[in-house]
Amino acid sequence: MRLNILGCHSATPLENAHTTSQVLEVRDHLFLIDCGEGTQTELRKNKIKFSRIKHVFISHLHGDHFYGLVGLISTFRLLGREADLHIYGPKGIKEIITLQLKLANSWTNYDLFFHELEQKDSELIFEDDSLKIRTIPLDHRVYTNGFLFEEKMGLRRLDKDKIGAYDIPHYELQNLKRGKDIVLEDGTHLSNQSLTLDPHPIKRFAYCSDTAYNESIIPLIQEVDLLYHEATFLEDHQNLAAKTKHSTASQAAKIAQLAKVKRLVLGHYSSRYRDKSDFLKESLPIFESVELASDGKIFDI
Amino acid sequence: MRLNILGCHSATPLENAHTTSQVLEVRDHLFLIDCGEGTQTELRKNKIKFSRIKHVFISHLHGDHFYGLVGLISTFRLLGREADLHIYGPKGIKEIITLQLKLANSWTNYDLFFHELEQKDSELIFEDDSLKIRTIPLDHRVYTNGFLFEEKMGLRRLDKDKIGAYDIPHYELQNLKRGKDIVLEDGTHLSNQSLTLDPHPIKRFAYCSDTAYNESIIPLIQEVDLLYHEATFLEDHQNLAAKTKHSTASQAAKIAQLAKVKRLVLGHYSSRYRDKSDFLKESLPIFESVELASDGKIFDI
Repeated sequence: MRLNILGCHSATPLENAHTTSQVLEVRDHLFLIDCGEGTQTELRKNKIKFSRIKHVFISHLHGDHFYGLVGLISTFRLLGREADLHIYGPKGIKEIITLQLKLANSWTNYDLFFHELEQKDSELIFEDDSLKIRTIPLDHRVYTNGFLFEEKMGLRRLDKDKIGAYDIPHYELQNLKRGKDIVLEDGTHLSNQSLTLDPHPIKRFAYCSDTAYNESIIPLIQEVDLLYHEATFLEDHQNLAAKTKHSTASQAAKIAQLAKVKRLVLGHYSSRYRDKSDFLKESLPIFESVELASDGKIFDI
Repeated sequence: MRLNILGCHSATPLENAHTTSQVLEVRDHLFLIDCGEGTQTELRKNKIKFSRIKHVFISHLHGDHFYGLVGLISTFRLLGREADLHIYGPKGIKEIITLQLKLANSWTNYDLFFHELEQKDSELIFEDDSLKIRTIPLDHRVYTNGFLFEEKMGLRRLDKDKIGAYDIPHYELQNLKRGKDIVLEDGTHLSNQSLTLDPHPIKRFAYCSDTAYNESIIPLIQEVDLLYHEATFLEDHQNLAAKTKHSTASQAAKIAQLAKVKRLVLGHYSSRYRDKSDFLKESLPIFESVELASDGKIFDI
């Protein structure tokens, strides 16, 4: 898994501070998570191939998380996209996008699928052979979901050094990957253990933005490899955080600590803070494995 | 009058090629004309005070001319704007904007007035003491208007060198400005001609984007001081221009020539052309007073 932050600032785009958007690469997938105004320009700047994005996840309908979506959809059309595009987001997102396409008299020449969300409990919204994606219900001023990306356990891996010593037919290699022992044509019995390695460990990434301090998400994000959690404010504005249903850096750290996550990445900074290092200073005493997001930064998970 | 180009490229925003938006300064007004994605960032880059913009004119509902509007409206709210904002644009624009504000549960704390346009003939849409604004019906794939900004003739100007020789009461100065002769208390008769100068000549600016070659606009834009006319294509793509209802550089020049405008500015370039100087090469033989728009460029009218 690889997370590429495109924008990690709140409220309003500035020339060098882009609103929320990030790309998660998992196996063959490239998932776009949130899409603030200007995201298409940031995708280009980060040299991300538009055609690889087939799924977009929108946390909530505040502008700094989705005003770039309609432009991205239009640009995909202008570039002659043919692949389907799936959009996951709160109920209402389909009406917003289709109204604009209708009034522009410019329907997409690719298929656009809307998966509108309105459940209050966590739900499975995507599943294939290699991973599952579920919502993480968040506590914000409007209906908001975070997203949990969870790899499935893969097949056992062939130990090439050991395999080379035998003449193993192709169909038996598949059995080995599935954990079975095999018998060669000459009757030799070979244990699975002697020829394979454990599957790669699975990775889990949780995206939580925007949200007030909310301990009810902890069971869902327990021990994830990386948690991106919003930290709009510092402690001196904790009243403002409560009022606007955002989190402070130390609240994000507290959630990370309680959920025993492996790494925490903070973002969604309010533009009032020039020096982002204060976000580290306030969170480090509570949770030591914390890093700061910045536009264009890549986190290998 | 002063025209500040924020973006003059078609279709899709790129890092260094912004979609359509421009600001026209006329006397006390700052008018925003079209508002492609990212316009709010370009406004900041060009150091234009947000609070001075009270009127926004949207030519048509293609994304490269208005996808930045909802973000700008939201940012105005976040900055605590109190002044009214007037939006002029095709029918449908009110529904698009209000739907997004409703779903974000974030109404503006200033008054937002929509002036929806649907007439096929030119209409007067704004008038105050100093200027008039009318639509210029254009020929594009969706309902589209250009805009004609026309100053009203001002008062006669007092000739300070001459005025100083007399003791003229304040109310008589107003009469002089209105073109009247005056009589001093001692019975001296003074002709208006001897004390005043002609009013400043009025200026007219016409904005025409997007449009196919369309001679029917000529009576409206006759002899304007500056015509901004789209030139999406060069001659080798004139078939594409006809098909998509855009203009070539030489078609824009032909309109300028027939309308006897004083200056022509070209913009709305297709991204397929790296070297914009070809737009000059193709238009200059037809109309000599032509210039190229570029993002951030200022034209004093």
